[in-house]
Amino acid sequence: MDSLTCTPSDLVPLLSSSANATALASFLCARFSTISSQLSDATHAIDNTYLLFSAYLVFAMQLGFAMLCAGSVRAKNTMNIMLTNVLDAAAGALSYYLFGFAFAFGAPSNGFIGRHLFGLKAYPSPDGDYSFFLYQWAFAIAAAGITSGSIAERTQFVAYLIYSSFLTGFVYPVVSHWFWSRDGWASPIRPNNLLFDSGAIDFAGSGVVHMVGGIAGLWGALIEGPRIGRFDRAGRSVALRGHSASLVVLGTFLLWFGWYGFNPGSFLTIMKGYGGGGGYYGQWSAVGRTAVTTTLAGCTAALTTLFSKRLLVGHWNVIDVCNGLLGGFAAITSGCSVVEPWAAIICGFVAAWVLIGFNMLAAKFKYDDPLEAAQLHGGCGAWGLLFTGLFATKAYVNEVYPGLSGRPYGMFMGGGGKLLGAQIIQILVITGWVTATMGPLFYVLKKMNLLRISREDETAGMDLTRHGGFAYVYHDEEDISMRPTFMMTKIEPNNASPSTDGQRSHSNV
Amino acid sequence: MDSLTCTPSDLVPLLSSSANATALASFLCARFSTISSQLSDATHAIDNTYLLFSAYLVFAMQLGFAMLCAGSVRAKNTMNIMLTNVLDAAAGALSYYLFGFAFAFGAPSNGFIGRHLFGLKAYPSPDGDYSFFLYQWAFAIAAAGITSGSIAERTQFVAYLIYSSFLTGFVYPVVSHWFWSRDGWASPIRPNNLLFDSGAIDFAGSGVVHMVGGIAGLWGALIEGPRIGRFDRAGRSVALRGHSASLVVLGTFLLWFGWYGFNPGSFLTIMKGYGGGGGYYGQWSAVGRTAVTTTLAGCTAALTTLFSKRLLVGHWNVIDVCNGLLGGFAAITSGCSVVEPWAAIICGFVAAWVLIGFNMLAAKFKYDDPLEAAQLHGGCGAWGLLFTGLFATKAYVNEVYPGLSGRPYGMFMGGGGKLLGAQIIQILVITGWVTATMGPLFYVLKKMNLLRISREDETAGMDLTRHGGFAYVYHDEEDISMRPTFMMTKIEPNNASPSTDGQRSHSNV
Amino acid sequence: MDSLTCTPSDLVPLLSSSANATALASFLCARFSTISSQLSDATHAIDNTYLLFSAYLVFAMQLGFAMLCAGSVRAKNTMNIMLTNVLDAAAGALSYYLFGFAFAFGAPSNGFIGRHLFGLKAYPSPDGDYSFFLYQWAFAIAAAGITSGSIAERTQFVAYLIYSSFLTGFVYPVVSHWFWSRDGWASPIRPNNLLFDSGAIDFAGSGVVHMVGGIAGLWGALIEGPRIGRFDRAGRSVALRGHSASLVVLGTFLLWFGWYGFNPGSFLTIMKGYGGGGGYYGQWSAVGRTAVTTTLAGCTAALTTLFSKRLLVGHWNVIDVCNGLLGGFAAITSGCSVVEPWAAIICGFVAAWVLIGFNMLAAKFKYDDPLEAAQLHGGCGAWGLLFTGLFATKAYVNEVYPGLSGRPYGMFMGGGGKLLGAQIIQILVITGWVTATMGPLFYVLKKMNLLRISREDETAGMDLTRHGGFAYVYHDEEDISMRPTFMMTKIEPNNASPSTDGQRSHSNV
Repeated sequence: MDSLTCTPSDLVPLLSSSANATALASFLCARFSTISSQLSDATHAIDNTYLLFSAYLVFAMQLGFAMLCAGSVRAKNTMNIMLTNVLDAAAGALSYYLFGFAFAFGAPSNGFIGRHLFGLKAYPSPDGDYSFFLYQWAFAIAAAGITSGSIAERTQFVAYLIYSSFLTGFVYPVVSHWFWSRDGWASPIRPNNLLFDSGAIDFAGSGVVHMVGGIAGLWGALIEGPRIGRFDRAGRSVALRGHSASLVVLGTFLLWFGWYGFNPGSFLTIMKGYGGGGGYYGQWSAVGRTAVTTTLAGCTAALTTLFSKRLLVGHWNVIDVCNGLLGGFAAITSGCSVVEPWAAIICGFVAAWVLIGFNMLAAKFKYDDPLEAAQLHGGCGAWGLLFTGLFATKAYVNEVYPGLSGRPYGMFMGGGGKLLGAQIIQILVITGWVTATMGPLFYVLKKMNLLRISREDETAGMDLTRHGGFAYVYHDEEDISMRPTFMMTKIEPNNASPSTDGQRSHSNV
Repeated sequence: MDSLTCTPSDLVPLLSSSANATALASFLCARFSTISSQLSDATHAIDNTYLLFSAYLVFAMQLGFAMLCAGSVRAKNTMNIMLTNVLDAAAGALSYYLFGFAFAFGAPSNGFIGRHLFGLKAYPSPDGDYSFFLYQWAFAIAAAGITSGSIAERTQFVAYLIYSSFLTGFVYPVVSHWFWSRDGWASPIRPNNLLFDSGAIDFAGSGVVHMVGGIAGLWGALIEGPRIGRFDRAGRSVALRGHSASLVVLGTFLLWFGWYGFNPGSFLTIMKGYGGGGGYYGQWSAVGRTAVTTTLAGCTAALTTLFSKRLLVGHWNVIDVCNGLLGGFAAITSGCSVVEPWAAIICGFVAAWVLIGFNMLAAKFKYDDPLEAAQLHGGCGAWGLLFTGLFATKAYVNEVYPGLSGRPYGMFMGGGGKLLGAQIIQILVITGWVTATMGPLFYVLKKMNLLRISREDETAGMDLTRHGGFAYVYHDEEDISMRPTFMMTKIEPNNASPSTDGQRSHSNV
Repeated sequence: MDSLTCTPSDLVPLLSSSANATALASFLCARFSTISSQLSDATHAIDNTYLLFSAYLVFAMQLGFAMLCAGSVRAKNTMNIMLTNVLDAAAGALSYYLFGFAFAFGAPSNGFIGRHLFGLKAYPSPDGDYSFFLYQWAFAIAAAGITSGSIAERTQFVAYLIYSSFLTGFVYPVVSHWFWSRDGWASPIRPNNLLFDSGAIDFAGSGVVHMVGGIAGLWGALIEGPRIGRFDRAGRSVALRGHSASLVVLGTFLLWFGWYGFNPGSFLTIMKGYGGGGGYYGQWSAVGRTAVTTTLAGCTAALTTLFSKRLLVGHWNVIDVCNGLLGGFAAITSGCSVVEPWAAIICGFVAAWVLIGFNMLAAKFKYDDPLEAAQLHGGCGAWGLLFTGLFATKAYVNEVYPGLSGRPYGMFMGGGGKLLGAQIIQILVITGWVTATMGPLFYVLKKMNLLRISREDETAGMDLTRHGGFAYVYHDEEDISMRPTFMMTKIEPNNASPSTDGQRSHSNV
């Protein structure tokens, strides 16, 4: 690369009227060329740094899912559900590398499915770099993670391996092609023939990720039926409490942390000035605003849930608050980049009630979803798509999806009903597509006796029967006789009635 | 945006002596203008990326607090304390968005309190972007988190909601206005009339965040009194051990991780060359140095605590080491950007002893603070402010707070006593302000019987009585009779004395 | 810094033929100079942001190690092992600041050991900034963390303090000097006299970090001998299961998360266009590709382990899958930047079998390594070095290690055997050096009775005897009599046979 160094003594001879104009022109052009090249490099370096670290944050959500799921199931199935979370990421990496990414983003293609980039062939290119692949992989594995929550504690491991590969490798990539690729039939970034002159706006995936995972979970859980003991003989709902609230809170906070990669990161680039550039306002502002709307929606949903549940149930429940928070996040994920912060508060408030409502419906219809995944990701995700159709602002829609004149925006903001129409189409199409693919799959697995574990396994817990033992061993059998006895005196009063000892240790531990 | 492309064949005609000088001038200026605009965009993109990811790290501290608090309380209050940590973040987001941020940074204003930017009106602006709001929100919620540790295990949930909102929405923003906003009366970045010609230097908030949270906790814990059983009838201290050292270590490491957003991130920008720019030395070096001083102070405090406690108590205690580490971090937070790495080692060494000393005082006066929060954040935070007044170097003070000639610096470094004076004023004023606001609040709550839970609730644990159940369920009642018995043989020897079985399970679990 | 502002009306007078050429030259040069300076600042800001956040991710691996170790040992030694992990970081910070960093990177020096930069004297400089120190510190503490896993559950704490300081302060820095500093005798970035005209390629440390930690652990564990009860009287292997699979999975995911700082971060800079710059392809692409190869290798190893263990052992085991995953990561760490993604899949597949093979060997020779650290980090690390010698591609080797014509590359890729030779030398030399330093150290500690704890302490657990108590207290003795009895009815059926109650609580908890 040429130097930018320039001293007057170099230039003066070139400027003298007797000098060769070509030499001066070369001198100046070499410098402009170097500057242009370095600015291009800087742009690539900034945008890739931004996208890679966002991808790492999204990956951290997989850890969040694992901890949330682990804490939400009973101790006897902890090993099982954590293994499914590790495998979502691992199997997802191979299948997404081999074909999932190609189905999603292998342009040029038709509107239904991509057909290039298998095994990252001819990649990177001017259209995309490895950071984009990594980012999209981290999204892909999230969908399967959502589904695993719905069918937890009663599903054969082999069924898990089959549906997870199918979902991550085919069902999800196709949906992301429709709404996120330049060729997708409902994409808002199509060069022409946009759905309702607009395309659906699902910025970070309330529909593409959350509804897909939630609807898949709905069919899995419906076809499997509820866990043993989830509804008593009179049909009343019996809570089968998760074994560790600490893991639930840990998982929720990690998901929150990772959502800052999920939503703001979906801009993919950050170095872009708006309004011609050079001012204080640009994509970095939109990225920051997206982080703020995400925060406000989740927090409002958490507070709404806190007080609603206090009124409805009578206590302050951190597990419910965590689910409400996540419902707010799932809802804002679609519109986070194109709505005002105040609208995000409305989004979160409604999301909390959507979740409460769907949970009431689930109890009424004896639908058992150990993580409320279908209600939360499916229900709040669908609300999020509608919300975008109602509250997307004109200015933000045109900044985030530029280059189209007269683009429709939110109905309540004066932008007409076309965007809302596209959003409704998205809800219907995702519901239909996932139902048409995952429903038969779960049904066939059931018919082949590959779906649900045996009654004995379910009662004993899968960890013991399938995964090599319980997840926790808080003390060692062989050491008990060595245990110091200095704690004995305090406990003696209890020893009067030995027949109740076991009972205490059951209830306490 | 115009192109930077430039070929000699474009330029030669413009340079010929017969050419129009205006055309050449326009040609060159258009290019310089484009370059200027792109460099401006790059600066915004870099600085916002830096600040946003720093904000995400600071947010991760809230997870760290949650895990640290959960592990430090007894199992029966785990749900309660985790809920308070989630709500710090959630309620804090709404109150800081609606008015807290405005009180803190709503310029132009008076020296006491800000008065613009309510609900982020007219934001972003050339003075600040959403990333700054997000970063400051993550700081604001930390203060309330500190306080919740001091009053853990005995406070009514409604009292928590009240004091937390008041602290995050008013008490803390006012303090941050004083020391961090351009208008604040004791701010080192005031354009004129600086306190002692210097202003107080509290770079990342040993005083503004840690002392505020610690002093608030002090009054709460004093007014509530110690937990039942914390001091025996003879007045001797009885350790009420937290229920999980793993959660304590997890929380401590997460706080350490997040502190790299808290301290280095407080520069807010990173693209700024020192000494005119263009060299290897710039704000990026100062940012890195701040990460190093932070690391060294915390690590020295941890090691000092390890060996001191070994001598004083007789064992190597990881919980104490974790607290020592955090004390070192709280202390260096004020001066991290303006001291040499070797001075950070001194800072950490003293901080460990400050914490040990305050803990001895607390035991002597029967002050019960389940997380040592007042001692750690209040005590080490105050030491940190003094430390800055003693060890801040001339060069770094002028790089970090530029534009003022003859700025005072650390007394031990030859900078006179003015900075130290300002630091002492800060300690006194924060102590006074927090005492004058939070003291009466806790007192009124007590008088209204809204502060402390009943004796029965405290003994049974709040989770059971107020939050819907215990945090942990390691096995299921209904499944016990189904439990496979293949482990029996190993345990049989113990069954000889059934009356001790319960005792074993009590002491082991 | 001068302005870039430029209006035609400024320039026109300067361009008129009667004007002073010097004034015009100065005008133009001032602008180029300003641009050059700002581009330099941008490069520093981008690269330092990239490196600092990578360092933070690598630091998060220390938390991952702590959780992985804690979950993999029995509950009675949890406090002990977590304390060692905290101290790796804390003591490592001081020793690496005082002399470790100087030994490793204190240029100019000889090929064996560095000799400048003690206590970061004369730092930062054009050759390195604080971000580089922080990044290297985070690497240094990883090696000691690996070793602590091998000797867990039976080592005196004072032995831990001694070997850890020696390893982090001397043994590891010397190795990193050899392979990573410009002066190192086997470094691929030496200006001349490269080993086999190539130098060894250990991009992020399969050998420098993982083998060093693993071989050190091997000698420690060999000299200490197995834990009590690890092999029964007939010599059969008895699994001493870790106490929490949740912590193991948490730790594994955190290590995975941190590995994105470890491998891609080892480029140290990201703003560098390849092929002259200005195109879409540059170091940012190589960084992204490194993240992808890392992901694919770990995931392939995890899947290979899953199915292999299912065949060999008969169940789906999440702990084994986690170890397989980490083995894949340890292997790809050497070649991650210079191989194709498809090759990473081969790397991971073989790594899984290397780990399985070494674990079989370990069982055969009654070698007890509670975390499989020697097998995993030592064995898979060595395989990773060989893999690089076989699969490194010509193009990537020349991009990542530029400036040398005819550089050897992977043997299977047509690059001859020289690189493979250098890799084999590295394996031998690291094995020899660590054996020659750590072996005698552990032996002397043993002879001085400072290495292994007493039989009584080992049986009772170190937490109780040395660290102030058990890590977990899930309920309080004094509260038992207050425990509500509403759960009693459900459990009554079990009370018929009180003598089995204890047994159940033993096996369940």
